[in-house]
Amino acid sequence: MKSHTIFDWSRAARTGIPEVVFAEHKPLDMLLDIINSHIEEAKPLLVTRLSPKQINALEDLPVNIDTLARTASYLAEDPVNAPKLAIVSAGTSDAPIAREAYVCARFFGLDAFLIQDVGVAGLWRLEKHLPTLQEMPLVIAVAGMEGALFSVLGGLLHAPIIAVPTSVGYGVSQGGEAALSSALASCAPGVLTVNIDNGFGASAAAAKILLHAKSNED
Amino acid sequence: MKSHTIFDWSRAARTGIPEVVFAEHKPLDMLLDIINSHIEEAKPLLVTRLSPKQINALEDLPVNIDTLARTASYLAEDPVNAPKLAIVSAGTSDAPIAREAYVCARFFGLDAFLIQDVGVAGLWRLEKHLPTLQEMPLVIAVAGMEGALFSVLGGLLHAPIIAVPTSVGYGVSQGGEAALSSALASCAPGVLTVNIDNGFGASAAAAKILLHAKSNED
Amino acid sequence: MKSHTIFDWSRAARTGIPEVVFAEHKPLDMLLDIINSHIEEAKPLLVTRLSPKQINALEDLPVNIDTLARTASYLAEDPVNAPKLAIVSAGTSDAPIAREAYVCARFFGLDAFLIQDVGVAGLWRLEKHLPTLQEMPLVIAVAGMEGALFSVLGGLLHAPIIAVPTSVGYGVSQGGEAALSSALASCAPGVLTVNIDNGFGASAAAAKILLHAKSNED
Amino acid sequence: MKSHTIFDWSRAARTGIPEVVFAEHKPLDMLLDIINSHIEEAKPLLVTRLSPKQINALEDLPVNIDTLARTASYLAEDPVNAPKLAIVSAGTSDAPIAREAYVCARFFGLDAFLIQDVGVAGLWRLEKHLPTLQEMPLVIAVAGMEGALFSVLGGLLHAPIIAVPTSVGYGVSQGGEAALSSALASCAPGVLTVNIDNGFGASAAAAKILLHAKSNED
Amino acid sequence: MKSHTIFDWSRAARTGIPEVVFAEHKPLDMLLDIINSHIEEAKPLLVTRLSPKQINALEDLPVNIDTLARTASYLAEDPVNAPKLAIVSAGTSDAPIAREAYVCARFFGLDAFLIQDVGVAGLWRLEKHLPTLQEMPLVIAVAGMEGALFSVLGGLLHAPIIAVPTSVGYGVSQGGEAALSSALASCAPGVLTVNIDNGFGASAAAAKILLHAKSNED
Amino acid sequence: MKSHTIFDWSRAARTGIPEVVFAEHKPLDMLLDIINSHIEEAKPLLVTRLSPKQINALEDLPVNIDTLARTASYLAEDPVNAPKLAIVSAGTSDAPIAREAYVCARFFGLDAFLIQDVGVAGLWRLEKHLPTLQEMPLVIAVAGMEGALFSVLGGLLHAPIIAVPTSVGYGVSQGGEAALSSALASCAPGVLTVNIDNGFGASAAAAKILLHAKSNED
Amino acid sequence: MKSHTIFDWSRAARTGIPEVVFAEHKPLDMLLDIINSHIEEAKPLLVTRLSPKQINALEDLPVNIDTLARTASYLAEDPVNAPKLAIVSAGTSDAPIAREAYVCARFFGLDAFLIQDVGVAGLWRLEKHLPTLQEMPLVIAVAGMEGALFSVLGGLLHAPIIAVPTSVGYGVSQGGEAALSSALASCAPGVLTVNIDNGFGASAAAAKILLHAKSNED
Amino acid sequence: MKSHTIFDWSRAARTGIPEVVFAEHKPLDMLLDIINSHIEEAKPLLVTRLSPKQINALEDLPVNIDTLARTASYLAEDPVNAPKLAIVSAGTSDAPIAREAYVCARFFGLDAFLIQDVGVAGLWRLEKHLPTLQEMPLVIAVAGMEGALFSVLGGLLHAPIIAVPTSVGYGVSQGGEAALSSALASCAPGVLTVNIDNGFGASAAAAKILLHAKSNED
Repeated sequence: MKSHTIFDWSRAARTGIPEVVFAEHKPLDMLLDIINSHIEEAKPLLVTRLSPKQINALEDLPVNIDTLARTASYLAEDPVNAPKLAIVSAGTSDAPIAREAYVCARFFGLDAFLIQDVGVAGLWRLEKHLPTLQEMPLVIAVAGMEGALFSVLGGLLHAPIIAVPTSVGYGVSQGGEAALSSALASCAPGVLTVNIDNGFGASAAAAKILLHAKSNED
Repeated sequence: MKSHTIFDWSRAARTGIPEVVFAEHKPLDMLLDIINSHIEEAKPLLVTRLSPKQINALEDLPVNIDTLARTASYLAEDPVNAPKLAIVSAGTSDAPIAREAYVCARFFGLDAFLIQDVGVAGLWRLEKHLPTLQEMPLVIAVAGMEGALFSVLGGLLHAPIIAVPTSVGYGVSQGGEAALSSALASCAPGVLTVNIDNGFGASAAAAKILLHAKSNED
Repeated sequence: MKSHTIFDWSRAARTGIPEVVFAEHKPLDMLLDIINSHIEEAKPLLVTRLSPKQINALEDLPVNIDTLARTASYLAEDPVNAPKLAIVSAGTSDAPIAREAYVCARFFGLDAFLIQDVGVAGLWRLEKHLPTLQEMPLVIAVAGMEGALFSVLGGLLHAPIIAVPTSVGYGVSQGGEAALSSALASCAPGVLTVNIDNGFGASAAAAKILLHAKSNED
Repeated sequence: MKSHTIFDWSRAARTGIPEVVFAEHKPLDMLLDIINSHIEEAKPLLVTRLSPKQINALEDLPVNIDTLARTASYLAEDPVNAPKLAIVSAGTSDAPIAREAYVCARFFGLDAFLIQDVGVAGLWRLEKHLPTLQEMPLVIAVAGMEGALFSVLGGLLHAPIIAVPTSVGYGVSQGGEAALSSALASCAPGVLTVNIDNGFGASAAAAKILLHAKSNED
Repeated sequence: MKSHTIFDWSRAARTGIPEVVFAEHKPLDMLLDIINSHIEEAKPLLVTRLSPKQINALEDLPVNIDTLARTASYLAEDPVNAPKLAIVSAGTSDAPIAREAYVCARFFGLDAFLIQDVGVAGLWRLEKHLPTLQEMPLVIAVAGMEGALFSVLGGLLHAPIIAVPTSVGYGVSQGGEAALSSALASCAPGVLTVNIDNGFGASAAAAKILLHAKSNED
Repeated sequence: MKSHTIFDWSRAARTGIPEVVFAEHKPLDMLLDIINSHIEEAKPLLVTRLSPKQINALEDLPVNIDTLARTASYLAEDPVNAPKLAIVSAGTSDAPIAREAYVCARFFGLDAFLIQDVGVAGLWRLEKHLPTLQEMPLVIAVAGMEGALFSVLGGLLHAPIIAVPTSVGYGVSQGGEAALSSALASCAPGVLTVNIDNGFGASAAAAKILLHAKSNED
Repeated sequence: MKSHTIFDWSRAARTGIPEVVFAEHKPLDMLLDIINSHIEEAKPLLVTRLSPKQINALEDLPVNIDTLARTASYLAEDPVNAPKLAIVSAGTSDAPIAREAYVCARFFGLDAFLIQDVGVAGLWRLEKHLPTLQEMPLVIAVAGMEGALFSVLGGLLHAPIIAVPTSVGYGVSQGGEAALSSALASCAPGVLTVNIDNGFGASAAAAKILLHAKSNED
Repeated sequence: MKSHTIFDWSRAARTGIPEVVFAEHKPLDMLLDIINSHIEEAKPLLVTRLSPKQINALEDLPVNIDTLARTASYLAEDPVNAPKLAIVSAGTSDAPIAREAYVCARFFGLDAFLIQDVGVAGLWRLEKHLPTLQEMPLVIAVAGMEGALFSVLGGLLHAPIIAVPTSVGYGVSQGGEAALSSALASCAPGVLTVNIDNGFGASAAAAKILLHAKSNED
C-alpha cells in the first residue's frame, strides 16, 4: 500500500496561517518528500521540532536551519513594516522554545524580538525592560518551573500575554504541568495560554491577532 | 482585628482593565462594602460569580443583576462604535459561562453578541453562522464535554479563538478537564485558552486584544 | 525451571476472534517458538507490536511483514464478499495505528480500507469522503492530539464509530490522554472507545460486530 | 435577553438516533418547554438524568416516568420483532445505570432485557445465564468497583461487549475511574467502552450497531 | 466499648510545640471533653478548624473564639519580646488561612503580624511593604490561585519563606494543587512549603525555627 | 568522604525476614561489596532487580543467577516440609515478576510453585487448576493490564489472595495503575495488595503469614 | 419492573466469608428487605456503611447497631478460643474505620481488640504497646494523613501488617491517596494493603488468613 | 542571533544566597562559559546536577568535582565556627541527593554532616543517632519510597525538619510523589518540604534560616 500525504496548498488562504510542518513522529523520507515538493513549487515552508538526526539529513538542502529552535525554513522573507512582538523568557533552559516562537513569528510576518533570562527569581533583571514592554501590542511569555513570570507580566503590562509553559523542570514541575496551571490560574487578567512547549502555537495566534484581527476591525 | 480591603482605584489606568470583583468566597458584608463604596464614588463596577444568596442580598441596590450570568453591574455604559466580538457556545448547559463572557465584554466596551447551541454533535447548526463568524476579528468559544468546538472553529475561521472550557460534563469530563485539554492540544493553530469556566478572563483578554493591542500598533 | 507457553488452538471457536500475538514485552526466542509452531501446524497467525529488532529477526521466515503497522502475518487470506470497514485517520502521525487496525481487520475477514489525513484542522479535506462514509455500516476513527475527529464523525454519520485515541502529541496530549477523554466525553451519540493506540482492539470489535452480531441476529 | 433552545426535529433522519434530552444542568422552565413542545407536536421524546426535584415537577404531564432510571418518556412504542440486547449488571448499586440503558434501548427500538447481580465476586451467579448470553448479537455490561465483569464476559462470549463503567465505589474506585480503566485495558478482545455512568450512550451505540450497521451491510 | 482520648500533657516538653487540637472530623462530645479537661487543669489550649456548628457549641465556654480563623484558644498569653513574624497574603479569599497562621503563631509565642491583599496581579501594592519585609527573620506567604507570590517574595527577600498554598480557586487551581506546585517548583531559593491550607503547620515550623533553632545554635 | 553501608546482620531475628538487597539504583561497586561480605561471612543472601549489566558483573561469583527473575542468590536452601504457596500469573509478560515472587518465596522457606498463562481472557485455562488452588492456604496472583484475575480468584477461592499488579500494559494500563486499582477496588473479599511489580514484597508477606502468623497462633 | 436481590445463602461455604451487606448506595426498602429476610431465616448478618438516616430506620429491628462503626449485626456470636487480632489506629479521626474493622473481625470469629491514638507524631505512645504487638500473629493498622504508621509497625514487628489507609486528611492527603501510597510503597517488608477506608476488607482478609490459611496448612 | 547569559554578580548581596548554576538542560558550551568567567573573575561558584558527560568535560578545569553529588565547586571555603546542620537519609539510593544537600550546605557556609542508612524499616538504626540529632538547630531529612522518615523525625525532635523527597522508588512511589505527599501531609508539626530531589533547595533554605534569620532576630 502506498499512502500519499495530501499537501494543503490553499491553507493560507483559508485560515491566514501558512502550513507549518511538525517534524516529530514523521519518518525521514516523508519529511524529505514534503520539503522537496515545496522547493520544486518554490513555495515558502517552515518545519518545526526537528530532531538532531533529522537536522543532519537536511544539511545539503537549500533550507535555513536553526539548531536551537529546531527549525528549518525555506523562502522566509524578513518582515517589513510589521507589527512588533516581544517574546520574553524566564531562564536559559527556556531558550529553545522562545527561539521556536521567534522563528515562527518572523515566518508569519511579525517583527519579533527576544528578551531572555528575566525570570522572577531576580525581578530586577525584568525591571529595565519594562518601558519597552509597556509599548508592545502583545507579549509572548515563555517560562517553565513554576511559571510565575506569566502573572507578574500580566499584572504590570497593558498588553495581552500569551503564556507558553515549558517542560523545563523536575519533580512537581516535570513535563511543564506546574507552569501550565500557573498560566491558566493566573490572577492577572489578560493571560492566555497554549500547550506546553508550543512556541509555534503562540506565534500562530499572535499572527492571527496582530495581522488578521486588526484588518477585520477596520 | 479589623482588615480593610484596599480598593484599587487606579487599576484601569495601569492594566487597561477596570477591576472586576470576584464574589465567590467573599463574605456578604465585604461584598456590600465594595459595592456601596463604588456607588458613593459613582464609579463603574462589575461583580461576577454571585451565589443565589448573594444575589438576593443585592436586590435593593441600584445595580443591574443578570441571574444567568451571575453578575451585578453598576454604571455600565452601552458600547458605541466598538469592535465586534462573537461568543459562540456549544450546548444549553454552557449558557451561564457564555453569558458571563457576554456581560463582561460589554462592560469592557466591546460590541459582543451570542451564538448559542451550535455544538459539534450537529455541525449543520453551526453552518449557517459561518458567514458572520468569518467577518469577526476575534471569537470566544465556550464548550464543555469533549470541547471539539474549539478545533472545529479554529480549522474553519481566520479569527483567533479564545477557548473557554466549561465544567459541564460527567465521568471523564467532570470538572472540565477534558474540554480544557482539547483546547490546549487543539490541532488548529490560533486557539488560545483560559481557565475552566473563566468567561471573565476570556473577555478581559479580548478587550486587551481589541482595544489595547490595536491602539498600540498604530 | 522451564515454562511452556500454552497455545490456545481452539480460541477462534470460542470467541470468534483468532488469537493475535502481542509481541511487546516478549523475548525473541518465545516469539520465534510461537511463529514456528504455527508454521509447522500451517495455522494462520498475526503478530502485532513488533519492535524494529524483532522485525529484523523474522526476515527469513515465510511471514508477511508490514513495517509501518509493525505486524507479521502468516496464511492470511484476502477477504471475499466481506463487510466493508472504513478506517479514518486524522494526521500523518496516526498512520501506524491506522495501519495496524487495517491489517488486523483484513486478517479477521473484513474488507477494510483507509482514509487518511482528514483531521479537523482542515474540515474541507474530510468533506469529500462523506458520501462514501455515509454508506458504511461501521467506521473506525484514529486520532491523537485533542481527538476532535471522533465527535465530528459522530455528529455527521449514521454509522457507529469506534474511536482509537493515539499517543501522538505533547504537553497535555502526551500519551494520548486528551484524545481518550475526548472520545469518552463525546457529545455525539454512538461513539465507542478502545484503549490508546489499540488498533488491534478496534478491529477485533469491528469483526465481532460485523461478522458475529449480524449472524446472531438472523 | 431571551435565549431560545433550537429543537432539532430532523435529527433522527441525520444520525439515526432520535434526540434524547439530558436533564442535568438544565433549569426547570427550559425542561418543561422542551417537553411541552414535543407533546404539542405529538413527537416521541426521552428525557434522562432527571433529578428527584425535576421528577416531581413532571408528575402532572402525560409522560412515563421511571424513578430508578431517572427517565421520562413520551410516545415510546414497544419494540416488535426487534433485535435482542442483553444488559448485564454486576451489583445492586449498578441498577440505576443498567435501568437507564434498558429504557433508552427500548426507546430506540431494541428488545432489551436485564440480567442483574451477577458480579465477579460470585462467578457461579453468572454461570446460569451463559447459555442465553451466548445467543446474543451484542451485550451491554454495567459495572463499578474494579469492573472485572467486562473482561470475564469478553473472555467467555462471542458477542461484542459495550462496557459501561459506573461511578459506584469508594477510595480508588470513587467516581468510576478504576472500572473505566479496567474496561479500556481489558485483555479480552471485543470490549468497547463509553463514559462513566453513560447508560444512554451505550444503548445509542447498540441501536446504531443493531439497526443501522445491519441494514447498511445488506 | 468506651474509647478514651489520651491527652499528651508532656508533648510541649518533647517537641517544643504545645498540642493544638484539629477539630475537623471530631465529634462534638469528644471536642468538649478535650476543652473541658484543659480548663479543669488550667492548661493552655488552641483548637483549629472549627466548623460553624462547633463554634456555636463553644459559645458559653471561657475560650477566645476567632470566627475568621476558625479557632478557639484558652489561656493564650500575648508574646513579649518575641521574634517578629510577617504573614503576607495575596487575596481577600486567603484571609481565613492567613488568620489561622496568625492566631497559631501568637499562641506559640511569636510577635506575628499580617500584611494582606498584596497579590501579584498588582505588584505595586506589595512594593510599599518591602522595607518592612526586608527586616524580617522569616516570612509566611499565603496564596491560592497560581501562587506567584511565593516566587516573587523569594526573589526579593533575604528571609526564608514558608509558603502556604490555599485551596482558593476554580478549574485547574481548585483545591490548591496549582498553588502548591508553584511553591514546590519555585525558581527562587529559600522557599519551603507546607500542605494546602495548613496555616497551623506554617506557624508551628516558624516557632521551631525562631524559638528552637536559635537557642540550639548558641 | 567514604560512606559505609551498614549491614544488618541481625535483621532476620528482628522481623523474621532475611534482608534481601534491592539492586536497582545501586552502583556496581556497592553491590559487589555487599555480595562479597556475605560470601566471606558465609551468610545467605538474595539480590533482586538486577539489571542485565549487573548480572554480567556477577558471572564469576559463586552465586545462583536467575535471568528471568533478575535475581542472584547465595546459600539458598531448598525448603523441606514447608507450607505450599501457589503463584498464579495472567500472561506471558507477567512471567518475570511471577518468577521473582517464586525465587523469593523459596528463599524465605516456602514450597512455592508457579501456575502461568491463566488470564481472564480465557477462563477455561484457569479452570483445570481450580482443584489444586482450592487446597492452598494462600495464593499470590500476578497480573497486569486490567487485573481482572484478582477478583476472579478472590470470588472462587477460600484462600486469601495477595495481588501483585504488574507494569505490563500500554495506554491507561501503562505503568500498572489500572491493575493496581483493580486489586484495591476488588469486589471479592480477601484480596490484599502490594506495590506494582513487587514480587518480593508479596512473598515476604506470604512468608510472614505462613511461617510467623501460624507459629504465633499456637 | 420488579428486580429481586438474589441472596447468596451458600456464600460462606464457597469463600469462607459470610456475606456482609454494604449499605452505601442501597435504597432503604432494599436494605430492610435484606435484613428482614435474614431475621425470618434466623441467619447471621452484618451490614456496614450505614448512613445516619439508615441507622434511624433500623431502630426498631432486633439488630445490634454500632453508631461509630456504622454497622448493624444480627445473631453475631462472641468468638471463643479464637485467634487474636490487634487493630492499631493512628488518630482519633481514624476511629470509625478502626471500629468497622473491629466489628467485622469479631463477626468473622476473631478475638479482635483495639489499640488507638498511637500515631507517629508521638512514637512514645506506641512504645508501651510493643510487647503486646510482638505476640500477635497479624496486625491491622489504620491510618490517614501520611500513613507513616504502616512502615513503623512493619519495621518493628514480626507479624504481617494489613494497612487500611483512611480518607482522613486535607490538601494532598484528602481522600486518602497519600496514606494509600505510603502503604503500598512501604520500605518495610510484610505490609499488605486494602482500599481506602476498607475496614471490612482488612478483617475479611484477616479471617481468611487466621482461620482458613491455618487449617489448610495442616 | 547570539544570546548572552547575564551573570548576576550581585545576587548574593540581594538574597543572601550565592548563585548556584543548575547544569541540567544546559548545553556544554554555555556551561563552560559560565565556569570560565568565574575562574577569570576568581569568584566562588557551585554547579549542580551535572550529567556524567558534563563531568567528563570539566576534568581539566581547576574545579572540585563530586561524582556522587553530581557537583563541581570553585573557591569553596571550609566553614569555620558555622552553625551545625544534620542531613539524615533513609536508604543507600537516597545518597546522591543527601550528598548534593551536603555539598551545597558547606558551600553556603554551614557545618553540615551526614547520617545515612537510617530508614524506618529498621528504626533501631536511627535510635543511636537521636542524642546527636536532639542537639541540632535544624535537620534535613532525605527519603524516597513512602517517606515515613519525615514524620518519625518530626515526632521525635525539637528541631524543624526540612524534608527532601527523592525520586527513588517504583510503582506508586516512582518519581517521588508518594514521598512528597508524605512530607506535606505529615502529622508531625514542624516539617517543611522542598521539591522532589531538591537537595540544593533544602540547603539554601537551611542557610537562610541559620545564617540570615538568626542575624535578623538580634
